[in-house]
Parts: sequence; structure tokens; C-alpha cells
Amino acid sequence: MAPTLALVGATGAVGTVMIDIINGRDTVPWGEIRLIASARSAGKRIPVRGTEHTVVELTPEAFDGVDIAMFDVPDEISAEWAPIAAERGAIVVDNSGAFRMDDQVPLVVPEVNANQLADRANFPKGIIANPNCTTLSMMAALGALHREFQLTELVVASYQAASGAGQGGIDRLYAELEAVAGKGLGARAGDVRAAVEAAGLSLADTPFAGTPLALNVVPSAGSHKGDGWFSEELKVRNESRKILGIPDLRVSATCVRVPVVTTHSLAVHATFAREVTVEAAHKVFTAQASIVLMDDPEGGVFPTPADVVGGDPTYVGRVRQALDFPNTLDFFVCGDNLRKGAALNTYEVAEQLAPRLS
Amino acid sequence: MAPTLALVGATGAVGTVMIDIINGRDTVPWGEIRLIASARSAGKRIPVRGTEHTVVELTPEAFDGVDIAMFDVPDEISAEWAPIAAERGAIVVDNSGAFRMDDQVPLVVPEVNANQLADRANFPKGIIANPNCTTLSMMAALGALHREFQLTELVVASYQAASGAGQGGIDRLYAELEAVAGKGLGARAGDVRAAVEAAGLSLADTPFAGTPLALNVVPSAGSHKGDGWFSEELKVRNESRKILGIPDLRVSATCVRVPVVTTHSLAVHATFAREVTVEAAHKVFTAQASIVLMDDPEGGVFPTPADVVGGDPTYVGRVRQALDFPNTLDFFVCGDNLRKGAALNTYEVAEQLAPRLS
Repeated sequence: MAPTLALVGATGAVGTVMIDIINGRDTVPWGEIRLIASARSAGKRIPVRGTEHTVVELTPEAFDGVDIAMFDVPDEISAEWAPIAAERGAIVVDNSGAFRMDDQVPLVVPEVNANQLADRANFPKGIIANPNCTTLSMMAALGALHREFQLTELVVASYQAASGAGQGGIDRLYAELEAVAGKGLGARAGDVRAAVEAAGLSLADTPFAGTPLALNVVPSAGSHKGDGWFSEELKVRNESRKILGIPDLRVSATCVRVPVVTTHSLAVHATFAREVTVEAAHKVFTAQASIVLMDDPEGGVFPTPADVVGGDPTYVGRVRQALDFPNTLDFFVCGDNLRKGAALNTYEVAEQLAPRLS
Repeated sequence: MAPTLALVGATGAVGTVMIDIINGRDTVPWGEIRLIASARSAGKRIPVRGTEHTVVELTPEAFDGVDIAMFDVPDEISAEWAPIAAERGAIVVDNSGAFRMDDQVPLVVPEVNANQLADRANFPKGIIANPNCTTLSMMAALGALHREFQLTELVVASYQAASGAGQGGIDRLYAELEAVAGKGLGARAGDVRAAVEAAGLSLADTPFAGTPLALNVVPSAGSHKGDGWFSEELKVRNESRKILGIPDLRVSATCVRVPVVTTHSLAVHATFAREVTVEAAHKVFTAQASIVLMDDPEGGVFPTPADVVGGDPTYVGRVRQALDFPNTLDFFVCGDNLRKGAALNTYEVAEQLAPRLS
């Protein structure tokens, strides 16, 4: 019998993209598809592959008969409900941060470590975690390079989109843009904060650390975890180590929010144990189906969020050999944080599991 | 007799800020101040320190009697006219890229290498160069750290403002913002390019590499110089080496334009020969008058362009010890690219020279 797929958090920003992805597939391996959300959204009707589906409330019984449950809900909801779903027999693919660093939970990017899904003994809790969207945005590229050249060091600066903070982040950025556009703020744009507040947008309520995001960049993502490091920066380090299977990978990340709606970008400085050239890296990128190489600096070809948003692949460009660091590449990578960075990777894991459950 | 100061490019974006700076000083060491620009702007009247000044046309005779000439004009205009001004007896402080890497031209950031100005033999051509704005934005911070801890490696990612491309860059970003604000582009903002073009803004004419800057980031600054490197990235490397006097400094920079009007930001990963702690770095930053430390991550205090634009100092925050790299700090720095990044540093050099000319 074809397995049953549940989608928990079906009405959120990522849940909506999950449904888009399911609708976009030529075929799906699922029998039933069940949409689950909070009581507030229960009863809502959403078409999935041509059939209206009614959103059901998140209850233990909602998982009866479910084979795979994709979760995109806040950490604390996942922490509570993923084990309940697993107990009812579902394999959970969870996109929250609740289980990513749990030793008994694999953290999977199919291009890099799909092998983790081959043996049920690898996920004794019945839970598989999906990485943080910032980590995910570069992982296909880094995984491919690591296989060839053996990654040892990583210095990363991010350009993270507003939708990483959910629908609230998207709405906030658009509202702030309207508050500053056409206001003649001039060369210094010195009163962005005042213009935003004058439009009735309290900076106490913003998801962006009390700071305007329009006409600004904000070096704060997640919460402060001590010694100056923010949670998002530590996730990039710890999740990269776990996914790539390099426990001693040296990583420094600076995570910065930018006024882009969707698509995270990263400037990556990656050092390898083996010699690496631009040509060899291009070959590696071109060989991987989920990577699109956009790298003709002379011709003005490189990835930008506006040009790649909505796409599934990881887009890589500006690949160059570091001039002063041996075995080191600098490159720029863009990935849609709602697709590969969240919904798509989660769904790809579910797809890989499906044949084992039929 | 008090020296005569000339300002070449007086009506441009940086020239305007130069006049602001001159107007904001309690006292100035100058007798006459002469405003020079292209024929198109000649005759324009601009108040300087309470007196109307008439802009004069750029001719050899315009430099007669000038002691110091600050240039902010395109490279090719500087290349032609700075030697003419020097021949007429002026010391030129040039903010173009024309002379920065010339061995006979010192590249000066007063906090770092003011000593270069002490001896006329250091600038045999009568020309002193002002660094590129991206390099300048972090130089006060790096110079201070280098004195204490001896810098050896630098990995930098920039978040560069539109005004780095002059008034045309500022106008373009505002026009694009109006084209996308309130258009309901949605989570994917997938049609930024279309919205910009629909507003009549040809992407062939943009200063931002044929790509929208609104709701986008553009990993291209300057022109392609081969092997994937853009001119701005090479400037960061070569100018940092020259200013700091570390010819073998290892540098990798990725320069990215962001939709900010004014103020460049940089994520800096800096490695030193000596041990360095956050506390020691804080002490170094606090001791330097031209640096403002904004570093309370727990309290949400860090610099952002919107909060520091228009200010003279270099703003530093997010200072943390790299977790996996010895003797290494990660930090975030913001500097107004029109002030310290251009007009202010140029004027500070001129101010330092003035007493020697009276």
C-alpha cells in the first residue's frame, strides 16, 4: 500500500511551499496526504494535487496510520509532538532545531549523507532532522567539494533573507519598504529608523533585533548563546560538522540579515586538505544535478537572490582560488531558503524514505 | 600665511560631504578654500563656512596658489590632473584609484600611518592617495589590532552601500525601491527584475552589474580583473597590505553590494601572530578615539548602517574569539563610506599637512 504522508504546520510559510512542491511533482509515492496544523487553522481547505484537503488539528490521533510526518513548526512544538507522532508509528522528518544535534537523530541532506536513511537503526527515535536553512543553502556545494578535496576549514558570511523569520519577517520587510520608499531620505538615509516608526511600525515588535531591515543589514540572527555568538552562527558550525561527518571541522560564521525577501546567500572561504583549482571545482559542481553553476565573471554571470528565488537548486558562482591561502576556494552561493533551505530538503528526505515503507 | 585648500570634484556625492565636513569643523587652518569642478558645474554657487563660493572650472590655472588639493573625481581625471596640480605646487590628496598602488605615492589612513606625512620625501610626486572606501571602512579597527597583536590573515565579506557607486547609485536604489514597494511581490519576490523594468528602469543602465539592487544582493563590485577576482576585492587585499605595511598579509575578500544607501559593513575574520581575546580587543578599540565600540550582543547592541550613517567613526561590534581558529577574532564593522570611507579621511590627511605649509 502506498504510504501516508502527513504535513504538520501545513499553513505556515514553509508548509505552503511544501504543498507547492508536492503539487509540482510529476508523480508522488503517497497514498493519502494529510494536512495538520494548529486548532486555529483546522478546517481550512487547501487543494493538493487537484483535490481539496481539509486541515486537521494537531492531536495524537491525527498521526494514526501516518507513515511519514514532515514537521515545520516552532522548536517547542516539534519537541513535544515529534515523539508523539513517532510513537504512533510515523517516521518524523523535522525542520525545527529541536533534534538536530541529538546523537540519535541523523541530520540529512540527501546529496551529502542519504546513506543515513538506508538503515532504520540510524534513527532509533524515528526522527530525522532537517538542517537550518543557512547551513542547507551551502551544503550541497560543500558536500560535493568535500568528497573530492576533503574540507578542513570554513569561514562564512551570510546574507540572509527576511523569510528566514517566517511570514512575519516577509510582511515586516514589505511594510518597512513602503515606509521608506519615495520619502526622499537622501544619501545618508539617516532617518530610516524614524521613517519606519512614523509609519506605525514599532521596532519593539520587529523580528529583526529591534532594528530596521529596510535599507539596512542586521548582524544578528537567532539568539545570543554566549561569548558573542548567535545561535544561527553556531548552527552553521555544528550542523556542518554533523552533516559532513567532520567533527573537527574548523568553522567561523557571521550571520547577517539583509533586505531580501527570500533566498539566502553566503560568501564562503573553504580550505581543503587536497589541492583544488577553479577548474576542478567547476567540474565537481557541474557533475552534481542539484547545483547550477553561474560563473562567468567576465560576462557578468553570477547568482543573485532576485534571479534564483523559487528555484530548487543551489546556485554557485564567483568561484576563485584564494590568492594567499593554499588549497582554498572563495565562492558565492545562493539558495532559496524556503525550498532547498527548508521545504524541499524535508520533502526529499521523505521521498527517499517512501520506497522502504510501501 | 594660512594655506589655500582646493576641492576638485566639489559638486559630486563625496565633494558635497567634503564641504559638509569643512562646514562642521570648529576651526579650519585654511586661508582660501577653492571649489573646482567640470565646466558643467562651473559657476555654481555653494556656501562654505558662511560665504558663497563660486565653483571654478578645472584648468591648470585653477591650481595657481593652491597648497593642498583634495581630488574626488574618476580615476582617469585624477590620472591626468593630479600631476598638473602637483606641478603647479599643490600637494594632492587623491581619492581615486589612480595612484594608490604607486610606490612613490603613500596610501594614508591617519590613525594607522600618519607618519608617512611627516617627510616630504615620502611623496616625491606631491601626491598622497586615499584608500578605497571598502578598505577604509575597516582600516582604523585593523590598524589598532595590528599594533597590538600583529595581523597575519584576513578573510572579509563586505556589505557595500549603493552610494559607493556615487550619486547615480543612490538615485538608482531609491528608484528601484519605489518600483518594488507596495507591489505585493510575495514571499518569493520572484519578479523584482520585472517590476524594476516595468517601472522604466533599464537594467542595462544600472551601476550594479545589470542586476536589480532592491530586494537583492549583488556579488560584483568594480570590474573583473581575471581569475574570478573583481577590482574591489583586489583593492581590499593590496591596499590593506600597503597601509598596514604587511606586504605578505594573506587576504581573501568577497565584495557584495547590498540595498543600503550609505555605510559599508564588513564581516571580518582576522588572525594574528599573538594571542588575542575579546577583552583585549575591546580595550584596543576603546582606546582609539575614532572607533566606537557597540558590542553588547546580549543586550542587542551592535552596529548597523541605519544607526551609524552620517557618523565619522568606525563602529565595531559582534567581537568574538573564533571557536576553532587560534589567535583569531571575528567581528563586524560599519563605516560611513562617504565620510571616513572617502571625504573625511581625505580631509583628515589635508588637515595633517596644513601646519607644515603655513
